[in-house]
Amino acid sequence: MNDVAMGAFARWLGVEMDEWREDHVRMSMKVRPEMLNRSGILHGGVLTSLIDTAGGYAGTWCRKPGHIRQGLTLSLTTQFTGQAKSGTITAVAERRGGGRKTFFVDVSVTDEAGREIAYGSGVWRYRSGHEDPDGVPLAEVRAPERGAG
Amino acid sequence: MNDVAMGAFARWLGVEMDEWREDHVRMSMKVRPEMLNRSGILHGGVLTSLIDTAGGYAGTWCRKPGHIRQGLTLSLTTQFTGQAKSGTITAVAERRGGGRKTFFVDVSVTDEAGREIAYGSGVWRYRSGHEDPDGVPLAEVRAPERGAG
Amino acid sequence: MNDVAMGAFARWLGVEMDEWREDHVRMSMKVRPEMLNRSGILHGGVLTSLIDTAGGYAGTWCRKPGHIRQGLTLSLTTQFTGQAKSGTITAVAERRGGGRKTFFVDVSVTDEAGREIAYGSGVWRYRSGHEDPDGVPLAEVRAPERGAG
Amino acid sequence: MNDVAMGAFARWLGVEMDEWREDHVRMSMKVRPEMLNRSGILHGGVLTSLIDTAGGYAGTWCRKPGHIRQGLTLSLTTQFTGQAKSGTITAVAERRGGGRKTFFVDVSVTDEAGREIAYGSGVWRYRSGHEDPDGVPLAEVRAPERGAG
Repeated sequence: MNDVAMGAFARWLGVEMDEWREDHVRMSMKVRPEMLNRSGILHGGVLTSLIDTAGGYAGTWCRKPGHIRQGLTLSLTTQFTGQAKSGTITAVAERRGGGRKTFFVDVSVTDEAGREIAYGSGVWRYRSGHEDPDGVPLAEVRAPERGAG
Repeated sequence: MNDVAMGAFARWLGVEMDEWREDHVRMSMKVRPEMLNRSGILHGGVLTSLIDTAGGYAGTWCRKPGHIRQGLTLSLTTQFTGQAKSGTITAVAERRGGGRKTFFVDVSVTDEAGREIAYGSGVWRYRSGHEDPDGVPLAEVRAPERGAG
Repeated sequence: MNDVAMGAFARWLGVEMDEWREDHVRMSMKVRPEMLNRSGILHGGVLTSLIDTAGGYAGTWCRKPGHIRQGLTLSLTTQFTGQAKSGTITAVAERRGGGRKTFFVDVSVTDEAGREIAYGSGVWRYRSGHEDPDGVPLAEVRAPERGAG
Repeated sequence: MNDVAMGAFARWLGVEMDEWREDHVRMSMKVRPEMLNRSGILHGGVLTSLIDTAGGYAGTWCRKPGHIRQGLTLSLTTQFTGQAKSGTITAVAERRGGGRKTFFVDVSVTDEAGREIAYGSGVWRYRSGHEDPDGVPLAEVRAPERGAG
């Protein structure tokens, strides 16, 4: 999956796309010292960042080669059920509903031993023009005008 | 407020504590290119990271010098109402309820022009031993055993 | 505001629309014994029902006489910060963002003494055909085809 | 499961406890005309009420005969993915984490055809004195002093 064009922040996180197909994503990343909080454990914001990233991709897989789809997060809720200090963490995201304009995704994050450390659920909308499953030619994609709409 | 000991990830974000008093926090940070997503706008995870950081501090101000309090995020919901590409963004967090063991905080994030780009609401619990408003001597603080409980 | 056509469940709750204008709603209702939970306090579901109702109206005020707008809740988060056993409770809802297709609303619920007992934040989308601020002639409104989309 | 003492509001909803064991609940209820909204579909508040009810029971099953446990909802998020107008709807709740003082539960609600119409995730805390898995003698249970803490 090395041909997935990650954004700058996902690259900083070191996110690897392990699996991406329609309505499904598996991603992983390594916990690094600069990601810890003042208690010495992985900052919750890194978990929400991974969840937001995985969720967005899970709803925007595009079946047409050379085309892409993009979504904008409307709302995201995360439950913090555990913690990690090091090792590789994995996010599995599954689309759980929605329609032509919006989609819902659930994401579970586990530590290297397979224990769930956080999970999230959110709703996204497709960017204007990205509602069609065939997506948009990659070359035509520009930054969206605004966050919600 | 330069004497606030930020954790590693908050330092990476470049968070500045502009104001911290009981039940209230104002923080700011500069949007940097490595924080953008594949659409070229600020990644939602940076916003949730800032919200989580500000919210946690808002509930853990400690009145006793040399003592601190720490909280663990249980649940955090963020609504994404706008977007930013650059400039300084500011988070204002206000405690909105809770008691001896848990606390609720709302956080609003605005861009340099003062427009709200995201807001969040969460519930935290105090780390075991940190329930007392007088907190814990800084020297005695260790990493918590687990995330929820 | 007696001319507001409430739905059946809002009527069962006994909701009164005290104020309704663009982006704003104030509603109240009386806590009745059949609304309590097994602990003898107001069931959280009554609070979320009031919040969902107030939030939906806050985003769908219509400026054109004889026309209406309708929204569908996509996601709703409620924080339970207090409790009530009796008396009249009041919900104040304020739209906090959104655009042509979706809207965000915050709702605060207070007891008879003015203490906040719950607050919520959600995202709604306009029903297809209801995006225009002029709404739809009341006579043409039918049940929506599905919940999300 | 006819010996489960439901509260007044759950009785009004007509909730039946189909299955209750440690960390798990299955409940069902029949959609009635007085539960519909102004669009003629099941009010979202009825769904959140069912989710809140099922979630609370899922975390408070008590192994000791004649004893009970009670929880207070801190935060609840619901995603509305479909809708129902009639028929019996079913909620399945599973505890998904937590510890001695707090617990997380996920709840899925399906219509009579088995389609998911909403799902929710929340965090609860045990009432003070109810932290022990052996619970509290039923005769000693009083109303809690406040909602959060």
